[in-house]
Amino acid sequence: MSIIVSASNGLADAWAQRMQSRFPDTDANVFGDANVDYEACRFLLAWKPDPDVFTACKNLEVIFSLGAGVDHLLDVEGLPNLPIVRIVDEDLTTRMTEWVVLQVLLHQRQQLHYLRAQAGNQWLPRSHPAARHLRVGIMGLGELGSASAKALCALGFQVHGWSRSRKRGLLSTEYVGPDQLQPFLSQTDVLVNLLPLTQQTRHLVDTQVLGALAQDGALGGPIYINAGRGGTQVEADVAAALQSGQLVGASIDVFEQEPLPQTSPLWSAPNLIMTPHTAAESNPEALSDYIANQISAYRQGLPLKNLVDSQASY
Amino acid sequence: MSIIVSASNGLADAWAQRMQSRFPDTDANVFGDANVDYEACRFLLAWKPDPDVFTACKNLEVIFSLGAGVDHLLDVEGLPNLPIVRIVDEDLTTRMTEWVVLQVLLHQRQQLHYLRAQAGNQWLPRSHPAARHLRVGIMGLGELGSASAKALCALGFQVHGWSRSRKRGLLSTEYVGPDQLQPFLSQTDVLVNLLPLTQQTRHLVDTQVLGALAQDGALGGPIYINAGRGGTQVEADVAAALQSGQLVGASIDVFEQEPLPQTSPLWSAPNLIMTPHTAAESNPEALSDYIANQISAYRQGLPLKNLVDSQASY
Repeated sequence: MSIIVSASNGLADAWAQRMQSRFPDTDANVFGDANVDYEACRFLLAWKPDPDVFTACKNLEVIFSLGAGVDHLLDVEGLPNLPIVRIVDEDLTTRMTEWVVLQVLLHQRQQLHYLRAQAGNQWLPRSHPAARHLRVGIMGLGELGSASAKALCALGFQVHGWSRSRKRGLLSTEYVGPDQLQPFLSQTDVLVNLLPLTQQTRHLVDTQVLGALAQDGALGGPIYINAGRGGTQVEADVAAALQSGQLVGASIDVFEQEPLPQTSPLWSAPNLIMTPHTAAESNPEALSDYIANQISAYRQGLPLKNLVDSQASY
Repeated sequence: MSIIVSASNGLADAWAQRMQSRFPDTDANVFGDANVDYEACRFLLAWKPDPDVFTACKNLEVIFSLGAGVDHLLDVEGLPNLPIVRIVDEDLTTRMTEWVVLQVLLHQRQQLHYLRAQAGNQWLPRSHPAARHLRVGIMGLGELGSASAKALCALGFQVHGWSRSRKRGLLSTEYVGPDQLQPFLSQTDVLVNLLPLTQQTRHLVDTQVLGALAQDGALGGPIYINAGRGGTQVEADVAAALQSGQLVGASIDVFEQEPLPQTSPLWSAPNLIMTPHTAAESNPEALSDYIANQISAYRQGLPLKNLVDSQASY
């Protein structure tokens, strides 16, 4: 029951070494290495994998996605119909929560204004709306969205959410499905996008969605925050909304093409804070434990956890 | 039992009007107004008051400080030996917590680096230490310090505190008194100063204190954050520590002289975030309720809350 790694991010060797050290009695190799017995491979660790791995490794039983999202995997040609395990990692969730809380506070507390004032040696106090006067709407209430919601509630923000299906009742107000998108947006001052990338969410956040956000909020206009997937937004529309003042601010960590091309209009959009896909860095040691524990459990006949729902695509 | 206001911040009239509307059957006036019966005044609302108010109003019974700190009041000449009520206001505490959490996250998550990279159209990912690998040390564990400690713990930071006297056991590690200042500092990566200004705390944070912070932390050096009182720091020492790299970052909201003079070396100190004493703006409506409720209780013979300890000076 050997392990094979196919990852186009330069970390394939490191992953194979980690798995080898966890399972000394099992082969763990990188796809493409010499002398690998592909027919013996049962477990694939994948990040944007080489499609040939699926034809070579005919006896795979489980695929592990090496990232929180699985869109990098689901559109690879020849993907077999096997269980796919998603990463659900406390460390990754905590880091995402830090980023979301930081970005919401940056806009609420007018920090860009203060940085500009300071750069000009100016003392320019401003009033800020209290957290309890701001309505944060979170799109996507999975592990990451729920954790961010909880942290923002603890700081006093009004938090509500929108998701594909009804969640565990974490929030007092949860909007569900396409029919409730408009009422959700109309009550949202700060939109936090933590959606997975699926056929349903691709390019969802466009001029129309941004235009449907609350206009009467305590910050003088809506804020847009995205740390989910770049493909869920139309970047030209976000840039235009910032230029026109339809949005009064934004924070974006994920982009349709990364690194963000120099031609993107986002580089010159006002009141935009960009980070280079660093909101929720995965900790390789924590993820190794997670994957190794699942492999051990599977070998003992125990069920896998956090499987991708192939209907929902996440 | 009438009410008198002496406040040198331009808000005295507003305060007198608020008190008048809460107590229609009582006189509420500003010190210096014509035709005020000073001998009838029992309650003083004060912010940097005119010292003459104490000689004119001989029958005062209670003084209300119109700010979270009372240092503006305690050094006024002729201050009588009367109960002084401090402001303890949930709204103010929440706002302070927002600011402290924002500033800790800004440094932890390298946001100044990302803003600089973005301004140069550069995609420069960095690693960030996890919250659980950063030790935040809070100086001053009163209402504000305790609330910030709780919020930072919830985000996963290691939080410990230092205060004059042992607190309620909020934190697993609490250092107490001058003897434990050094061990406290040596375990601190991010120093959060929320101390009141007293004879003991004046100019406490100097080159020696900053030099005693942990040097082996996950951010490559210590961070200094102050939203207490400007007088508790030696500003030239903070600026020098930032210039030399002894501090890798700082966030300061309060200064010995405000607005900060143009000659201050802080304006040009690197990796410093300054805000113009806006960390914890008081909400006049919330404070009016607080003071009016205490006046009503006192008139009914009930005890006053949140009295200043004249020995401790806060």
